[in-house]
Amino acid sequence: MQKLFVIKVGGTVIDDEVRLLKFLKDFALIQEPKILIHGGGKLATSMAEQLNIPQQIIDGRRITDAETLKVIIMVYGGYINKSIVATLQAYGCNAIGLSGSDGNLIKAHKRIHPTIDYGFVGDIDEVNNQLIDQLLKEKMTIVAAPITHDGNGQLLNTNADTIASSIAVAMSRQYEVRLVYCFEKKGVLDDIQNENSVVPLITREIHLELLNSKKISEGILPKIDNAFSAIASGVREVIIGDAEDLLRNISQSPSGTLIKE
Amino acid sequence: MQKLFVIKVGGTVIDDEVRLLKFLKDFALIQEPKILIHGGGKLATSMAEQLNIPQQIIDGRRITDAETLKVIIMVYGGYINKSIVATLQAYGCNAIGLSGSDGNLIKAHKRIHPTIDYGFVGDIDEVNNQLIDQLLKEKMTIVAAPITHDGNGQLLNTNADTIASSIAVAMSRQYEVRLVYCFEKKGVLDDIQNENSVVPLITREIHLELLNSKKISEGILPKIDNAFSAIASGVREVIIGDAEDLLRNISQSPSGTLIKE
Repeated sequence: MQKLFVIKVGGTVIDDEVRLLKFLKDFALIQEPKILIHGGGKLATSMAEQLNIPQQIIDGRRITDAETLKVIIMVYGGYINKSIVATLQAYGCNAIGLSGSDGNLIKAHKRIHPTIDYGFVGDIDEVNNQLIDQLLKEKMTIVAAPITHDGNGQLLNTNADTIASSIAVAMSRQYEVRLVYCFEKKGVLDDIQNENSVVPLITREIHLELLNSKKISEGILPKIDNAFSAIASGVREVIIGDAEDLLRNISQSPSGTLIKE
Repeated sequence: MQKLFVIKVGGTVIDDEVRLLKFLKDFALIQEPKILIHGGGKLATSMAEQLNIPQQIIDGRRITDAETLKVIIMVYGGYINKSIVATLQAYGCNAIGLSGSDGNLIKAHKRIHPTIDYGFVGDIDEVNNQLIDQLLKEKMTIVAAPITHDGNGQLLNTNADTIASSIAVAMSRQYEVRLVYCFEKKGVLDDIQNENSVVPLITREIHLELLNSKKISEGILPKIDNAFSAIASGVREVIIGDAEDLLRNISQSPSGTLIKE
């Protein structure tokens, strides 16, 4: 099976123009088929503030009302997505920016919750792996915004990490998928005080050892759990690490933490 | 050669939600391969106002400074484009929304003018007809926003009418292209006082007669000139007419004014 990189880049890189350009330059250099999923960063929040749209937080979760959704579509689906695509084109990468409604890329339903109305938030039902495969075969690089649609005309705000893992899982039927989460740390740390104590490899066995020794910081635990559930659904490997180091040598010996069966 | 409709819809329809939904429903029903190019409408202007971005007008032309370009990318490339696509998906039309940087759809250069700096406005160099042909063959309907890119990472604001005619001309090598401009009048009028005096057909011969009789309103003259220049470059026919009537019977007997050699 052919290799495919599904790479998610988050807010801390998106918000910093210099880091973003460097990241995109490294990304464009990856020779294997690849997909980029971008988060939003602070631009949507500051845009909502400028437009005087009050941001509602319930139980620590942001509620996506109609006006906030509009900002998210403008900022994530428009400004960030198209700017990334234009930059990648300049770096010789034939990028195509899509939201979930484009070519019916990602279908979702409005989140149903017994007590909280999250508003226009989508939980994913289906990824159009046929469209992705067609575009990959035409040597195009999809840049996916964290937006889905319900098939009835409603766009929905969807977590970028979830979009990345859903795309990775859907494509693992046809490709040997390596799912990459770029974030602000160099990887899973053995000693949270020491940025250079990256655990290079986590297998299920090592995971259990780490859990027993209680060395891993709590914040990273859900990420590792999500990684193993993606692997259980067919993804070959998951890599967690710093955006700056991670992409440089990703085809040969990636830095960061490699998570595999 | 296979037929292809290249249809441009402008601000008056975009700004009116009820009219837009009706238009998109009619558009989705067209059985032939088709491409939609949308303008912006008033939303970008009101968004710029809300964000306190002063709009600079020189010699009656709007200048696209960096902040205005950002609004245009957000509103045209994001909100309007993705909303149209989600609606078309609901109507069973497999739409894919693209700006000029996506898949290198439309390459342009920043306008050069001896006295006026128009800012980030693009004049078109090349349409990627291979990409369009691929997507059409995969039964997808491109929804193009009026945004181009220069290949060096710069997005540019470009007139939607010009994008429509450039796409129509580029595709006329492979398709029998009918270029359709939807606007607020029922077509070219024989008597500008009478909305129902639509001239059904304009050939070069009829055009000369109309020019001599000075019956046509001045506002419509450049549109007819542009239509004939598109026809001279390979487009089969151009139709100008009202968005509400025009699409209903477009495959058989379109209303509005038909312009041909």
